[in-house]
Amino acid sequence: GLDFQMGLWAGRVASLSSLSHLERSDKFIHRHVGPQQAEQAEMLKTLKVGSLDELMKQTIPDAIRFARPLAVGEPRSESELFEELKGIASKNKQHRSLIGMGYHGTITPFAILRNVLENPRWYTPYTPYQAEIAQGRLESLLNFQTMVTDLVGLPVANASLLDEATAAAEAMFVCYNACRPKRSKFFVSELVHPQSIAVIKTRAEAFNIEVVVGDHTTFDKFDEVCGAMVQYPATDGTVFDYKDFVDRAHSNKALVCAATDLLSVTTLSPPGEWGADIAFGSSQRFGVPLGYGGPHAAFFATRDKYKRSVPGRIIGVSKDRDGNMALRMAMQAREQHIRRDKASSNICTAQALLANVAAFYGIYHGAEGLRAIAQRCNAFAKILRTGAARLGLAVHDGELFDTVRVGFASAVDADAAMAQAVSNGFNLRRLNDTTVCVAVDEQFTLAEANTVLRCLNGGKDVSFTAEELGALPETQPGHDAAHARSSSYLTHDVFTKFRSETELMRYIDHLHSKDYGLTNSMIPLGSCTMKLNAAVELYPISWPEFSQIHPFVPSDQVEGYKEMIDGLVKDLANVTGFHTVSMQPNSGANGEYAGLRVIMRYHESRGESHRNVCIIPMSAHGTNPASAAMAGMRIVPVSSDKNGNVNIEELRTKAVQHKDNLAALMVTYPSTHGVFEEGIQEVCQIIHENGGRVYMDGANMNAQVGYTSPGEIGADVCHLNLHKTFCIPHGGGGPGVGPIGVVEDLAPFLPGHPVVPTGGENAMGPVSAGPFGSAMILPISWMYMRLMGSSGLKHATEMAIANANYMVERLKRDYKILYTGKQGRCAHEFIIDCRPFKATVGITEADIAKRLLDYGFHAPTMSWPVPGTLMVEPTESENKAELDRFCEALLSIRQEIQDIEEGRTDKENNVLKNAPHPLSRFTADSWEYPYSREAAGYPLPWVKAKKFWPTVARLDDVYGDRNFVCSCPPMESYYDLNPTS
Amino acid sequence: GLDFQMGLWAGRVASLSSLSHLERSDKFIHRHVGPQQAEQAEMLKTLKVGSLDELMKQTIPDAIRFARPLAVGEPRSESELFEELKGIASKNKQHRSLIGMGYHGTITPFAILRNVLENPRWYTPYTPYQAEIAQGRLESLLNFQTMVTDLVGLPVANASLLDEATAAAEAMFVCYNACRPKRSKFFVSELVHPQSIAVIKTRAEAFNIEVVVGDHTTFDKFDEVCGAMVQYPATDGTVFDYKDFVDRAHSNKALVCAATDLLSVTTLSPPGEWGADIAFGSSQRFGVPLGYGGPHAAFFATRDKYKRSVPGRIIGVSKDRDGNMALRMAMQAREQHIRRDKASSNICTAQALLANVAAFYGIYHGAEGLRAIAQRCNAFAKILRTGAARLGLAVHDGELFDTVRVGFASAVDADAAMAQAVSNGFNLRRLNDTTVCVAVDEQFTLAEANTVLRCLNGGKDVSFTAEELGALPETQPGHDAAHARSSSYLTHDVFTKFRSETELMRYIDHLHSKDYGLTNSMIPLGSCTMKLNAAVELYPISWPEFSQIHPFVPSDQVEGYKEMIDGLVKDLANVTGFHTVSMQPNSGANGEYAGLRVIMRYHESRGESHRNVCIIPMSAHGTNPASAAMAGMRIVPVSSDKNGNVNIEELRTKAVQHKDNLAALMVTYPSTHGVFEEGIQEVCQIIHENGGRVYMDGANMNAQVGYTSPGEIGADVCHLNLHKTFCIPHGGGGPGVGPIGVVEDLAPFLPGHPVVPTGGENAMGPVSAGPFGSAMILPISWMYMRLMGSSGLKHATEMAIANANYMVERLKRDYKILYTGKQGRCAHEFIIDCRPFKATVGITEADIAKRLLDYGFHAPTMSWPVPGTLMVEPTESENKAELDRFCEALLSIRQEIQDIEEGRTDKENNVLKNAPHPLSRFTADSWEYPYSREAAGYPLPWVKAKKFWPTVARLDDVYGDRNFVCSCPPMESYYDLNPTS
Repeated sequence: GLDFQMGLWAGRVASLSSLSHLERSDKFIHRHVGPQQAEQAEMLKTLKVGSLDELMKQTIPDAIRFARPLAVGEPRSESELFEELKGIASKNKQHRSLIGMGYHGTITPFAILRNVLENPRWYTPYTPYQAEIAQGRLESLLNFQTMVTDLVGLPVANASLLDEATAAAEAMFVCYNACRPKRSKFFVSELVHPQSIAVIKTRAEAFNIEVVVGDHTTFDKFDEVCGAMVQYPATDGTVFDYKDFVDRAHSNKALVCAATDLLSVTTLSPPGEWGADIAFGSSQRFGVPLGYGGPHAAFFATRDKYKRSVPGRIIGVSKDRDGNMALRMAMQAREQHIRRDKASSNICTAQALLANVAAFYGIYHGAEGLRAIAQRCNAFAKILRTGAARLGLAVHDGELFDTVRVGFASAVDADAAMAQAVSNGFNLRRLNDTTVCVAVDEQFTLAEANTVLRCLNGGKDVSFTAEELGALPETQPGHDAAHARSSSYLTHDVFTKFRSETELMRYIDHLHSKDYGLTNSMIPLGSCTMKLNAAVELYPISWPEFSQIHPFVPSDQVEGYKEMIDGLVKDLANVTGFHTVSMQPNSGANGEYAGLRVIMRYHESRGESHRNVCIIPMSAHGTNPASAAMAGMRIVPVSSDKNGNVNIEELRTKAVQHKDNLAALMVTYPSTHGVFEEGIQEVCQIIHENGGRVYMDGANMNAQVGYTSPGEIGADVCHLNLHKTFCIPHGGGGPGVGPIGVVEDLAPFLPGHPVVPTGGENAMGPVSAGPFGSAMILPISWMYMRLMGSSGLKHATEMAIANANYMVERLKRDYKILYTGKQGRCAHEFIIDCRPFKATVGITEADIAKRLLDYGFHAPTMSWPVPGTLMVEPTESENKAELDRFCEALLSIRQEIQDIEEGRTDKENNVLKNAPHPLSRFTADSWEYPYSREAAGYPLPWVKAKKFWPTVARLDDVYGDRNFVCSCPPMESYYDLNPTS
Repeated sequence: GLDFQMGLWAGRVASLSSLSHLERSDKFIHRHVGPQQAEQAEMLKTLKVGSLDELMKQTIPDAIRFARPLAVGEPRSESELFEELKGIASKNKQHRSLIGMGYHGTITPFAILRNVLENPRWYTPYTPYQAEIAQGRLESLLNFQTMVTDLVGLPVANASLLDEATAAAEAMFVCYNACRPKRSKFFVSELVHPQSIAVIKTRAEAFNIEVVVGDHTTFDKFDEVCGAMVQYPATDGTVFDYKDFVDRAHSNKALVCAATDLLSVTTLSPPGEWGADIAFGSSQRFGVPLGYGGPHAAFFATRDKYKRSVPGRIIGVSKDRDGNMALRMAMQAREQHIRRDKASSNICTAQALLANVAAFYGIYHGAEGLRAIAQRCNAFAKILRTGAARLGLAVHDGELFDTVRVGFASAVDADAAMAQAVSNGFNLRRLNDTTVCVAVDEQFTLAEANTVLRCLNGGKDVSFTAEELGALPETQPGHDAAHARSSSYLTHDVFTKFRSETELMRYIDHLHSKDYGLTNSMIPLGSCTMKLNAAVELYPISWPEFSQIHPFVPSDQVEGYKEMIDGLVKDLANVTGFHTVSMQPNSGANGEYAGLRVIMRYHESRGESHRNVCIIPMSAHGTNPASAAMAGMRIVPVSSDKNGNVNIEELRTKAVQHKDNLAALMVTYPSTHGVFEEGIQEVCQIIHENGGRVYMDGANMNAQVGYTSPGEIGADVCHLNLHKTFCIPHGGGGPGVGPIGVVEDLAPFLPGHPVVPTGGENAMGPVSAGPFGSAMILPISWMYMRLMGSSGLKHATEMAIANANYMVERLKRDYKILYTGKQGRCAHEFIIDCRPFKATVGITEADIAKRLLDYGFHAPTMSWPVPGTLMVEPTESENKAELDRFCEALLSIRQEIQDIEEGRTDKENNVLKNAPHPLSRFTADSWEYPYSREAAGYPLPWVKAKKFWPTVARLDDVYGDRNFVCSCPPMESYYDLNPTS
């Protein structure tokens, strides 16, 4: 509590009684937590409590508060922990991995690394729901979509999925849903990457889709399958001509999905041109570091016909109310879809930050540059093939792109080559006993080619050089007419204008200057926990020791990763009160899916595979029912009582009613209404008594840490949004990370992986392409937890709760606050009811949200979990001054509403209905509103000193829905930056 | 030429005839150079030349073009060279240096490292001459000044000097100039840091000031000296009470200067309180990395009485024409001073970027935080003292701050301690045979204290621990009443509001959002060469292998630095055609001084110390005469002919006239008028024939590299602005780096150093505190030159010239272009004559410059070298699209002038006179101008799409001059961000 904070400060001045004054002074806790000592005291006064402890007693039910202290250690200093992690990271070996399988060495342009990946203006923003203050990254994501559609030759693309393997599963579901007549078989070529096949199988299970894996050259049961999937180029490097395959599929009404290497189609005929219906894959090799498996942005493109089936987010071109072009997340419909239990996709998080990196990479290189990189890879692959053949090894003759398959006379010879490679700092792929694959990447050099040839030769000297081979006609880059791409791509201006670093830097800067992030002011999004993403936490992800590691390297090369991940698992298990944690799910929704499937596997293991009922409160996150449906469960809803709590009696009734088939309950705690429900333990008990397991949604973990835990409360599984409570930034719409914690008897079922052994002894299939999901960003949470230590983490929780309650106290006389606990306290977030204004003067929660933009603030969560409301979560990182400003803005808006209510201002033409007011209205000569420019733009004096300006007016969603455009419009539409001359 | 560029592109596509398609594709040249192939072709067409070669033939006189190719190697790829430098850097040993002497380990907060030091928004802007688009860093520098005045207890401070040693010399000159009666002796305590004493002596020489170094406790000739200097705390760690010393000085009309440790005065009584007239020192330990000696910001503070004598820049508070508070560089008068040959300071560059880091460090820690760091150092020093005493070693009894002096029984014992320290990863300071000093810093830990004690004990185990000692009463931090500080400091809001990282990050972001940098658009400053500062060049300065090195470490710990610096010296010598280069001068002006002193030492060595005449063309940089005066030279001016060239006949006459006393000519090439003068070789010959040496100002080196060189032209010395031609960023007003190249017979005189052997065998004294100046940022130029290679560097030169000539071509019909060469070509910059408009309608160059801000551009250089003109230098990094936009803006402004000329608009109340128009005018309800908002704010269509908004109107300089304020005004003045409630 306050005592704690005072102790912290006391530690900074001389003391005769301890050595605390000799500790390093760069302690992190009071950097992470916004309100310092004096502010905390003022807030407690406003809250009329004597201490933080007293407030916690009023907030968190006694019954669920645990006595045990956390065991994540003492708070640490930033510099000290930084050094420690550097030491751990240095235990990883940075071999050059030529393994391929969807992961390739790439050169992240330093200008993109510094100005995008390491720039808080790009990594701290939220998903661009508030389009008016997000036009920069919306444009960048539109560039990504344009790049993908151009490269794969299909007209519609989304703004990224989690990884290639989950994209593959999504592709299967699109086929499954689209195919008429309905068919429940799906063909997958055996030359698709193994991790993709495994994830497809995991996801198919719950839907009883039969996945047929086989040789695509001999497969002929097209009339039985809803779709078929091939890899292009195939996982062993072969470049097939799939035209005939596609024709046969189509003539049997089956769709074809092509897992596509995005670089390869700069020189190879793209899937759209040989008939594929869906092309998907990873954009990792477009400048995104390997990072031991992620995060990377997967892409997903299809024909216009299937655009409404595309999973994830599509950015669309629309206009604003002033008639100016404006971008937005189109297909908003899908956001509703996920609430339906018919969902076949629960995707919520994208990989926006990484998609942006890939887009800028494409812009920087342009068509010529990308083609040159592809040709270089191709030439080197041919050099290796020619060389291997000269060494007497078996190579395939046909088309190839960047990957060579080399056959050895014996396993012993192949062993020798693999061993030589490792001792020379390379990793190759062992395809089978006698076969090795070598995948060439952008970083590859002639010197490396010579070394690899020597390795293939068992370490013996080679009588020729790569340089000699490189001059031969047969090693020149290119493809035969049947495979070569002849169509142009990336012809839009945006891919030609920014080739100098100066221009690229300015474009990057120009885009982010339109976007509101945590660098500007608070993002008080209920349920999203937009807390500080500290620089010290972010630095390690740029270290090559973490970033330059292929996910499938031998385990002795990742001792550093192992130590870091094990440490994080231990800390998260401690905080959640669980037995162990799986780091594999790479989003919250993916974690939900994995957690529910673990429960299903548990029931199956006990011969109770019929248990498939999942009880879900009405107030649940939209992803909950979607995840349950995807996991093959039948959803039974439970209503809330008038206080917003789960209706326990109804729950009991339904649990008993379904007790023979009860699989699970999904519940969020504190509730999505922002309250610590008193009856949560009883709820868990009821489920357990009726044979079910309790799945807890970890979205609100920020209100639990150090005070209670899912494990102590009685949950069996919980996913953790590391991008919420544990400081991974939201990246403007991803990455997210959603590990799951489980109790001991569920641990055996945690997800495994076909390439890297992981998970429980009775593991379910993988849910992500990477064995440890988005491993590269796990150091962020590792750093956060250890910087804060046990006491700091607890302090963060109490300050998150104190901040929310302080705001309630300031607002409750003017706004109706929905759902507080017995003593009038909320948890770490609260709901403002806007419905009364709609009733009186037609002002909606959206009007208030958009008007907040005029005050220089990001809007809270709109209409969730209760329609017609705003949900506010300040987090512990905001200080009192910022909370006060936000409250001032809301109070001022209340006055503006009252002006309408009392007839002083017009009901239709007022500052709220016309909000937000973009700068263009002020610079125009005419002003056609019945209020002043000052009233519109600077409604409070302090707004003038530091205002973030919306760049467009409120979006016209109807127009956008009617005119669907998801790639870059001609540049003139943007007010072309070229001189008019 | 174009062929070259085409070759580059050709290298990116397959070719049967070479292996160029196998080279890494991340070549840098076309990232650095703005115009790509197609744009170059269009530009050549506009210029009516067939090739770049043809343009060069029209531009650079045949006689001075050299035949030799440069020898800096082939162009390299970014990733490859990055790895190579990493390898070199890893040869440095990162020992923990407890050497002190003005350089201390510090913890740069990661939030400041990422958001300031590594942020192009902070490092790419220019010196804030255009205050209307620089209020962010002006505020930050004002914070720096406020912090310094508060801490040292004196009311006036500047916004930084180059380093503590040059600040010491500046302090001496203030005393020398201020003292009445005039006295030419200056006392310096022998306990001032040795490098400061050495630089003082170097600088005193030319003015015949006698520097008396002695024991301040016994010195009693105050009536003979103009001033006296002490170190606080003294270099050996002793904390003296100087009150009596000050009293005696003052009663004898001598001033007292205190070299001050900025951290120490958070707990020790500050110099202003014990009577010092001037306090100066380094702010390095406020979060700025050691960097092997620099760059670091020195501070300089004094009494109000001497404010007009303060060297360097002072930021002042004024208001704008709309009456709003606005900051600016005050003391503009000094900018003129430097043109006078009576100058005793030639300072032009400050250390703005590092001063900003220090200011943010102060803001982040605040008074309590800084005091805690100081107390920690103090406690550890006491622990070491107590421990050393227990080990039987001699220690001093009195006050100390962070440095302990330890006396050994013998030199052998001291040797053993030093050796033990090194082998345990520490560097201590060997004060003399039997004495060792240990300076504690912010990074120090209890574990380190134990190790150091063991080292002092010759490596033998110690029977007590630092922990035990730390609990003793005598090791508690604090000072006795005579030395302790009781006054408060850093009480201004700015030092209390931004303690959480969230708030600090937002404040940093808010400030830089007001500032125009290369991240926004071009900065076409004639003579300042604002080219790309590429990310890949900047990364290495953050590497601890470079940043965590004390300048006075044993030479075997800096093999990496040595290799990098030697390589850079070799490359720069090659490019300049000189024998060798000294990296010591840490600004261009400092390089000028050093170069001229080398010439003087040369003459002295030949018994010709009477040679002191320096011929300087009227068109010279203002620093030239100032530097010559400081070097003890007599200035003889030479006029220009009507074409702007040096009047050769006048030069010949004056050279002959002064031939017995001729020391040097200072000349800029291409001339400051932007022309390659045909007669330059004749000019050099005339000087040589009359016994003088030629000093070339390297400001315009960007137009020479690869085509000609100072050496080939006939110069003997030249300084290089690495922050111009060689890509070190301007940092918003520093750092700069100004190494000098010399011919062989001048090499023996290159500057030495008292601590680290360097320079020629007959070395002049040091000119900077660090032996290699601002060593930490030298990797930037090293990277640049090697990335470009010989051919790339030459290509940059021709494109810099082509860009300038292209602009001339687009503008010459509407503006008078002053001074072009025989064939109508300029060099890399050109001058626009604005005097005709002043004559006709009273429009000045300032009106045009300020109006350019409304178009979203930074203004060119104003009224230099010709009053009433603008000088434009586009550099090679700007592409044609950007040049076109800038030309469009100028042409549009010409039309606006014509509107006045032709009576369509008012002569006083027009868009030019009222420029710039800040955003506040547009958001106001009233608009009182006789033209539209659109005309004011968006004068061309493309301005709307991407405009940088000035945050204040034109500065009111008269008001500022009359109301001098150089520290933060009450926060209300800024429109306080606090809620109004």
